[in-house]
Amino acid sequence: MNRLTCQKEFDIRFSEVDSMGIVWHGSYSLYFEDAREEFGRQYNIEYLYIFEQGFYAPIVELHIEYKNPLRYKDRARIEISYRHTEAAKLIFDYKIFNADSGKLSATGYSVQVFLDRDFNLMWDVPAFIRQWREKYL
Amino acid sequence: MNRLTCQKEFDIRFSEVDSMGIVWHGSYSLYFEDAREEFGRQYNIEYLYIFEQGFYAPIVELHIEYKNPLRYKDRARIEISYRHTEAAKLIFDYKIFNADSGKLSATGYSVQVFLDRDFNLMWDVPAFIRQWREKYL
Amino acid sequence: MNRLTCQKEFDIRFSEVDSMGIVWHGSYSLYFEDAREEFGRQYNIEYLYIFEQGFYAPIVELHIEYKNPLRYKDRARIEISYRHTEAAKLIFDYKIFNADSGKLSATGYSVQVFLDRDFNLMWDVPAFIRQWREKYL
Amino acid sequence: MNRLTCQKEFDIRFSEVDSMGIVWHGSYSLYFEDAREEFGRQYNIEYLYIFEQGFYAPIVELHIEYKNPLRYKDRARIEISYRHTEAAKLIFDYKIFNADSGKLSATGYSVQVFLDRDFNLMWDVPAFIRQWREKYL
Repeated sequence: MNRLTCQKEFDIRFSEVDSMGIVWHGSYSLYFEDAREEFGRQYNIEYLYIFEQGFYAPIVELHIEYKNPLRYKDRARIEISYRHTEAAKLIFDYKIFNADSGKLSATGYSVQVFLDRDFNLMWDVPAFIRQWREKYL
Repeated sequence: MNRLTCQKEFDIRFSEVDSMGIVWHGSYSLYFEDAREEFGRQYNIEYLYIFEQGFYAPIVELHIEYKNPLRYKDRARIEISYRHTEAAKLIFDYKIFNADSGKLSATGYSVQVFLDRDFNLMWDVPAFIRQWREKYL
Repeated sequence: MNRLTCQKEFDIRFSEVDSMGIVWHGSYSLYFEDAREEFGRQYNIEYLYIFEQGFYAPIVELHIEYKNPLRYKDRARIEISYRHTEAAKLIFDYKIFNADSGKLSATGYSVQVFLDRDFNLMWDVPAFIRQWREKYL
Repeated sequence: MNRLTCQKEFDIRFSEVDSMGIVWHGSYSLYFEDAREEFGRQYNIEYLYIFEQGFYAPIVELHIEYKNPLRYKDRARIEISYRHTEAAKLIFDYKIFNADSGKLSATGYSVQVFLDRDFNLMWDVPAFIRQWREKYL
């Protein structure tokens, strides 16, 4: 099975930093989302593609562990990896680093499920996801 | 003509404060939006009502002047006033105060236009807005 | 031991809703923070008080499970409960409900540690936290 | 006098789009800030440099006009230009375009003043700004 992963570098924005001078913890969910989009672009499974197949893929679980703070003007790097499951889910693992020092800043994971356009939960893996797994894994 | 106005108090959130220890300037557009929603509730012209009439009312102009900073744990008060126009627009004026000191923190205004569901600009005042103006002004 | 808990109602803001028409998952970390502030006010352990004692209390772990989406104009209610630990940590559990239907929208928890002003991690429970626990638990 | 200007391309994020499917108007203040940071990098007048000189440069006026909406997955381009003034202010003009169609999405400007570390307003142009103007204009 292939390990599907990609990464992205980004700058810390002034508005993401709180009065302690470090990135506000809530901003990390945005970094994770940026990483999912980057993954989607690279592996052809973008939100819009999922939507065109007739589905939403909302987040149902989000977990973040904060190791070392990021500060304004830091350059950061996020790694996202696809974690395989047989279930009708998309699971991603994340690692955020300070891109200059290489220090680990945060880790986490997210779980997404599939809903049809009427917001019904899909218990079975949608066909387009099965095909995607066959192609890429 | 009646002066349509309402106000709302709110607490400054930790996440709205930047590394200077003051509310990040971009947060004020959120306070203005909260005020518009409060106005909508009080004068029956909420976003959802506008949408149900078949229209969107996007912001086309936003102006903010910052007078005195707000800090974490400050209590703030926002006043919103309807500024009449014959045009197919909604114009609101805003004033934000420190609720404790009474000091003026910011002023501003916003302009909204009407689009139909196909995103066509309405050059004439939509009927439901004419009726609303007759009722309230 | 007392169960320390409090709750708060709030309206869903237009800007918190994404293009699926539901609250963006990242907004929940903001709701959790609002709940911590409410807890702090009620039990005298606000961020500013912690800071005045010479400490920061950054989030080191955040976990959210999303059960039922919240939509624009929904009224929500968040419950926050203090989860006791002997460690030099603050742990809170959260439940978010649709305030009208009573339906559970999300659950989660957060873990905070204590840093001194030089950002050194406190391995021992700071004195002011020991006193606070004696008083309230 | 030289025309000081620079530009930056960026992708529209999922979380920046509202339930109308277009970028929430409040997100533009963030784009403007990103552009100021890019300008600061290119012309050596970054926030941190200003801070090291002993000053803050908070926004005191922000004006945005929205022309054409940006949507999820659009590629955008922002241009920022320095508008000269003899006053103790920093004024920037902004234009945001859809990078693919070239269509103008928004225009605006911002005004910043200088405060010393005690938050006193500087009525005279700080020396480091005079030097910067001599060097670059």
